Amino acid sequence: MNCLLLPAANFSQSMAHIDSLAQMTHVTDVLGATVGDSLKIGQLGGHLGTAIIDDISADRIQLREIALTIAPPPKLDLTVILALPRPKVLRRLIMDMTALGVRDIILINSVRTQKSYWQSPMLARLDEFVLEGLQQGVDTIAPKISLQKRFKPFVEDELARLITDRAVVAHPYGSQSFGQYLQNQYLQNQDLQKSHLHNKAASALPSMVCIGAEGGWIDYEIALLAAQGCTPVHIGPRILRTEAAVNALLGQWLL
Amino acid sequence: MNCLLLPAANFSQSMAHIDSLAQMTHVTDVLGATVGDSLKIGQLGGHLGTAIIDDISADRIQLREIALTIAPPPKLDLTVILALPRPKVLRRLIMDMTALGVRDIILINSVRTQKSYWQSPMLARLDEFVLEGLQQGVDTIAPKISLQKRFKPFVEDELARLITDRAVVAHPYGSQSFGQYLQNQYLQNQDLQKSHLHNKAASALPSMVCIGAEGGWIDYEIALLAAQGCTPVHIGPRILRTEAAVNALLGQWLL
Repeated sequence: MNCLLLPAANFSQSMAHIDSLAQMTHVTDVLGATVGDSLKIGQLGGHLGTAIIDDISADRIQLREIALTIAPPPKLDLTVILALPRPKVLRRLIMDMTALGVRDIILINSVRTQKSYWQSPMLARLDEFVLEGLQQGVDTIAPKISLQKRFKPFVEDELARLITDRAVVAHPYGSQSFGQYLQNQYLQNQDLQKSHLHNKAASALPSMVCIGAEGGWIDYEIALLAAQGCTPVHIGPRILRTEAAVNALLGQWLL
Repeated sequence: MNCLLLPAANFSQSMAHIDSLAQMTHVTDVLGATVGDSLKIGQLGGHLGTAIIDDISADRIQLREIALTIAPPPKLDLTVILALPRPKVLRRLIMDMTALGVRDIILINSVRTQKSYWQSPMLARLDEFVLEGLQQGVDTIAPKISLQKRFKPFVEDELARLITDRAVVAHPYGSQSFGQYLQNQYLQNQDLQKSHLHNKAASALPSMVCIGAEGGWIDYEIALLAAQGCTPVHIGPRILRTEAAVNALLGQWLL
């Protein structure tokens, strides 16, 4: 945790309190903080700042001198459509996409998503993983997460409406690399060339990325996504763990 | 495992055998393969290809029709200097850097590396994590890993010799972003401009990246690294888990 995020209900006038066990343990055991020390805090959906520990009791930590003056960092203009992964990696994927600042996350069914994944108790804990990601990335605004258990109706009936400009689908057998795609977009688009971004490739970043789970998308899924405007792009011959692939791809948005 | 890598000693003439328990379990339980099926295999340090399962017994799987015709993918021209992380994340970091194709990995001490990390039994298992990474990334050539338990003598006496062209150190308080750095290198360097890489930023990628563990480098460490030619660069205001940061940074090399 690089900041402690508290719900609005935990603030009252110039005071606030921490009552979650995980956060209390972090303050006392990990940070080793005590009465009088300053903490980095934030209000969920609000601003970031600091507070002073006023009192520590068994079931709550009281805070005073609340100063929430820093706006959270801007979200990435990005929707990630992710084939629902194994429950074991779901937590870290949600945490990482949240910490990276993804604005919209759509978890979708795919042929290589096992049916049992949709019954996982981890799916009831998404808010918890988002909170971890926000506290890691020092942000207060949760991404919007939605679940789409039916691939074909979603892609055919809803996807095109969600694509605001460019969209790509990560696919090891795509005919061009993501780098080539960015360069081509730039060269073909005069509006992008007129933008004064220092990083030319960055100006061509798409606003939607579709990423398969282990084993990737099957050809039928790629064809359906491509028909709605998602360009298949690869990131080289190496096969990465889903987590590594998501971070390696989304790292392009950080430059 | 996206391929099964076997040591040279397991090959003899046109036959080979699998005798590691992890690999045998993968073949029988995960792949559900049986006699007559084809497997993707490779020889450690050699080529990639296929083989047919000839026989399965309790302690080995015999392979025939060995066809190793595919060269492994090229390594990245990249040395990663990584502050030794928590043992828990070491396995995944070594796996991911190996799968990404990093050529040299130097695990180094830092002020924020706890002394106990150097006593971890995980450090004796690096070869195992490398094998996992190679089998994930479909490569046969292991990265060279070295351990440097003393930061100052290594940085002052050995680092400059290892920097073949450009080097950066990831630092949240660097004055320029990694993207700005790449663009500036390109603009300032006529040799880079003459290169015909489709991706202009890619031509300016450094050949060395230094990455801190949780908590990052302290100012003294940054100053020492900078004095040897490592330019501090940031990747935005968000703080990522070490694993996520490594993948997000190294993802630039995949484009």
